[in-house]
Formats: sequence, C-alpha cells, structure tokens
Amino acid sequence: MDYDKLVKEFGAERFEVMPDELKDLRMAKYIVSHRDFLSISKKPFAIVSGRGPSGKFHLGHLATFMFVKQMQDKYKCRVFIPFSNDEKFLLRGISFEDAQNYAMDNLLDIIALGFDPELTDIIIDLYNLPQDLYNLAIRVSRKITYSTVKALLGFTSETNIGLSFYSAMQVAHILYPTMKYGLPSVVIVAIDQDPFIRLTRDIAEKLGYHKPGALHLGYIPSLQGEQKMSSSSPYSAIFTTDDPETVKKKVMNAFTGGRETLSLQKEKGGNPSICSVYAYLDLFGADTEQIKKDCVAGKRMCGDCKKELITLLNAFLDEHRRKREKSKNLVRKFLK
Amino acid sequence: MDYDKLVKEFGAERFEVMPDELKDLRMAKYIVSHRDFLSISKKPFAIVSGRGPSGKFHLGHLATFMFVKQMQDKYKCRVFIPFSNDEKFLLRGISFEDAQNYAMDNLLDIIALGFDPELTDIIIDLYNLPQDLYNLAIRVSRKITYSTVKALLGFTSETNIGLSFYSAMQVAHILYPTMKYGLPSVVIVAIDQDPFIRLTRDIAEKLGYHKPGALHLGYIPSLQGEQKMSSSSPYSAIFTTDDPETVKKKVMNAFTGGRETLSLQKEKGGNPSICSVYAYLDLFGADTEQIKKDCVAGKRMCGDCKKELITLLNAFLDEHRRKREKSKNLVRKFLK
Repeated sequence: MDYDKLVKEFGAERFEVMPDELKDLRMAKYIVSHRDFLSISKKPFAIVSGRGPSGKFHLGHLATFMFVKQMQDKYKCRVFIPFSNDEKFLLRGISFEDAQNYAMDNLLDIIALGFDPELTDIIIDLYNLPQDLYNLAIRVSRKITYSTVKALLGFTSETNIGLSFYSAMQVAHILYPTMKYGLPSVVIVAIDQDPFIRLTRDIAEKLGYHKPGALHLGYIPSLQGEQKMSSSSPYSAIFTTDDPETVKKKVMNAFTGGRETLSLQKEKGGNPSICSVYAYLDLFGADTEQIKKDCVAGKRMCGDCKKELITLLNAFLDEHRRKREKSKNLVRKFLK
Repeated sequence: MDYDKLVKEFGAERFEVMPDELKDLRMAKYIVSHRDFLSISKKPFAIVSGRGPSGKFHLGHLATFMFVKQMQDKYKCRVFIPFSNDEKFLLRGISFEDAQNYAMDNLLDIIALGFDPELTDIIIDLYNLPQDLYNLAIRVSRKITYSTVKALLGFTSETNIGLSFYSAMQVAHILYPTMKYGLPSVVIVAIDQDPFIRLTRDIAEKLGYHKPGALHLGYIPSLQGEQKMSSSSPYSAIFTTDDPETVKKKVMNAFTGGRETLSLQKEKGGNPSICSVYAYLDLFGADTEQIKKDCVAGKRMCGDCKKELITLLNAFLDEHRRKREKSKNLVRKFLK
C-alpha cells in the first residue's frame, strides 16, 4: 500500500515530531498519519476504535487494541469500542448467529487486555445497541443521501439498504462519545478507512459537534509476508486461541528477511525491514534493537528468531488465554 | 380515491360476507378490502397498527384505534402499535424534539382507549426500540436493495439513507409479533399503503415467517368534505385536545350533504352519503338509522345534526380527556 499517496490524496497530516505519549509505544511505527491529533489531545478526548467481528481474533487485532489500551493508560481517556456485527452480517453474508458469536468471542480478547471498565464503553450493535446511539444514527442518516454513499463507498443500486444505513451507524459510532460526554473523538483506524472519517467530519459540522480526529494506522504484516493478515487465510495469522503447537507450526512457516542460504546470510546479513518474524518480535516486546544489529551483521539466523518468537508468543498467549477466561465475568461490566 | 381501482391493481380481496366480529363495528363500512383475513383470523393472530406521529391526534386517528381496540375485544388478540417517529423525523423535516413530543402526546390518546396492557405492546422507535426489533430490521434490510425501494416508493438518489432503511424497519414492525410470539400479523392500514404489505409478504417468505394479512381502510372524510383529514389544516379535523368552543366552531363550519336553502332541503331532503357531519355522528355512536331517514325525507335540517354532533363529541372528548390524563400513569406499563 502506497501510504504516501493515500496521505496526500486524503489530505491527512504526518507527525513531524511524534508526541511523547506515543513515541515509545510498540505500535508507534505503524502510525502513518493523523487528523487534528495534536490539537485534540491537548484537552480531554475519547478514543473510538471499532471491531468488525467476522472471524476469530488474531495478533494484528490484538496489537491494535493493546495500543488502544496503552493510549488509555497514557492519556487517561475514555475509550469507546463499537462492534459492528450488523455491518458484517450485511456485508459478508455470514449468518446472524455467527455475527453474534464472533462478537461475543472477540469481546473476551478485548476485555482481557485490561481496559478500565469505568472509562470504557463497549457496544455490540446487534446485542446492546443503546437507544441514544440509534437516535444519533437516525439524525446522521438524514444528512446522508444515497448519492453520497454511492460516490464514497462504491455502492450500487443492488446494495442492500441495511449496508447504506450502516454508513450512518458508523458515523454515529464515531460521534457517540461527543454526543454523550461532550468529548471530541480520536478514531484509531486503518488509513484506507479515512473516507469515513472525512464523511464524519463533514456531518459533525452539520450537527454542531466537534469534528473527530484520527490516528491512521498502516497494516501489520501477515506471517506470509503479505501486507494484511486475513482471518480467512489461516497460515497468514496467529489467532489468540491457537494452541502452542499451531503457533510453532505457523511461525516455522513464516516469511522472513533471511537469505537463500545460511552461508549467504552469514556473509551479507538478513533484512529485518521486510521480515514478518521480526515485526512480531517487535510488537510483542522482544529486544529488537539487539536482534536487528545481529541480523544485519549476519550473526543471527532466522531459526534463532523463530525460536524466540515461538517462546515469546506462547508465553504471551498462555497468559492472554488465562485473562480471556477471567474476562467472562467482566462482560456485564463492559456491556452496560 | 378510486378504491375499486386500487383493490384491483393491488390484487387485494373484497369481503363477500363481512365476518360477524367486524360487521357491527362502526368502522366496518370503511373496510375496503383485505388480504388473507379470513384464513388468518381462524387461529390466534396479532394486529399491527402503527402511528406516524407528525402532529396532534384527531378524530380520524381516534376512530381507527377505537376500531383496533374493538378488534382486540372481539378476537382477544395481541395488538402491536409501533410509533414511527424516526420516519416522521426523516421524511417531514420536523425537529427531533417534535418527533419525540408528538409520539408521547399521541401515546396518551391511544392508551386512553382502554387497550389491554397484557395484550398490547407499544413501541416508539426513537424512545424504546427493542434490540430484537432492530435486529429484525437488519435481517430484513439485507433482503431489500436500493432498486427495490426506488421502484416501490419512488425514492431518488437524493433521498436520505435513513428513509431507505426505514422501509426495512416498517417491514420489521409488521413481522415483529410473528418473530416474537409466532403469531401471524394482520395489519390495519390505509389501502394506499398496501405496497408495503406486499413487500412485507415477499420478505416474510424469504425469512421463513408467516405472510402478514391486512385489513385495508378507506379514508374517513375531513370536516371540510375532502377525502382525508390533515393535521396541518386545522379546520379539516377536530383534535382530541380541542376545547368545546373550538369543537363547536369546527362543526358549525363543517361540510354537509344539505341543500342550498332550508326550503329546498325540506322539499328534496339532504344527502347523508356525502355529509361529513353524518359520518362523524355515525362513527361516534349516534342513532344514524333514524337520522338518515329523517334527513333524506327532508324532516331534519343540518343545524339539528350539527347541534347533535357538537353535544356528542364534546361529551365524548370530555370523557376521553379524563382518560387521557389517567393514561399518564399507564405509560410505563405499555412501553415495556
């Protein structure tokens, strides 16, 4: 994905200097650009980061919500996590039951990350949609015509009317903390979703709300070296429910920045910048500064990194699954 | 309105013989046609009769819901009354506050009619929308494309996406008792709304629900002799909140079936079939058999009828307003 092109095309901003609160976070290097973050984050604000549950939770999802959790810790800010299982049902053709089950399943992964229940609202559209969110979506929907969603999202006359309406629901998700608590929102979102942010900023103005800001994230690489992980391609992603053997198998098969032969790697060194194993070591807390040096110098082979990642992830996931089990008792607290 | 044409065009059915339960009701003569009523009413069923609150409640609304209440008494059936204030907000450009206030206001008029709270569900879309109704609307919306609502309802690309989605919500209103209680619905609806019934029957089939039936009502005449009363044209309708003097003034100005002069009327008699005063005397319980005879025979003048109607309506409305006040305590019971 050509991020420079998108940033320019969308008219987003680059950080000249990354704010102190963000720069040490593991996800900081995935922040491509932003909208109004510097001005909004000077005062109290809310983070909106949604989840479209159409499959199991994988490490990419986990890393993103770990980042959101760290943001909550740094800024002591309110976090709103809308689950758009209505959209997934309308868009993907998954069954209604699956749309509910994936939401409930993914919810446990998110709660397990330790969000503050007093400062975190989680809403599953098809499970605990609040009346005031529906009302906000209706108010938003009066400001959006079919022409607009057609131009913006490529809808056709054969698109179902639920999916058109979901555009309004998504805008309402973003504006919900602003409507409810008077806090401007910062949306943490993949950069290619920026058209929604622009639509929301436009509508916020019409409804008299503060325009939302955004932090645009680039994609965390797949284990297979493609840009984006996919729940439907099992070898490209490690799921939080994968057992240690599966994790091992997936990491052993991962795409790395290594050379064709061991001797070539010793001679020329590896390339961490394209290496998926390196990316995950980095995201899940390994000492990547040293690893990078050794790799580039030809002193560390891919097998070493894979072994370290397997140990690291299995320890992490073991702990995560423990917390995930405990999260079942916290569901009610979050789904107010 | 050419009812014969509509019935034929829509493919609805006429009653060859009106069912016993209906034939003595004051509204029976306004039943133009039906869909599947004879078969559905053989077993337990639910009535769905909605209210689009965009103004105050007038006698036409009252007569319709009195009919619904009588149906509940006769058939001991469940009644579902959805208030589509979302649609009114999206369609009419009324403010959000008015959309809520009209709903709350009209609600009192409906409760005052004495519906059985155990057998009656009332829902105001922007106030107590149940999660399972939203979910049903989402399931319905996946079955409706923009092309369909464009063809069926004349929407254009400049129609807001909320209004398109409302088509799904309306279908969901109709199917709600079927989804919730397993009861087939009979919709009591103005005949020109039949396209929605057909859409719903089509979708019911796709979702595996019993197809709804309908009783199609013709319009109760306006006091000014036009076919339809209008909340926006105050002299055409008497509102439940009109005081006795206003009622008197409106009735005195009403369109009748009288002749140009008293002597002509004594000679030729009046015409009850086009007379709005006669229509209201009939709807609100006067002995219209005798009145009709006397009128046609030239023995009864319009002034007599107006005087009787004023007395009748003011007594009725006085009692209705008393019940309306008491209804405030019942709101919670109905808005479960």
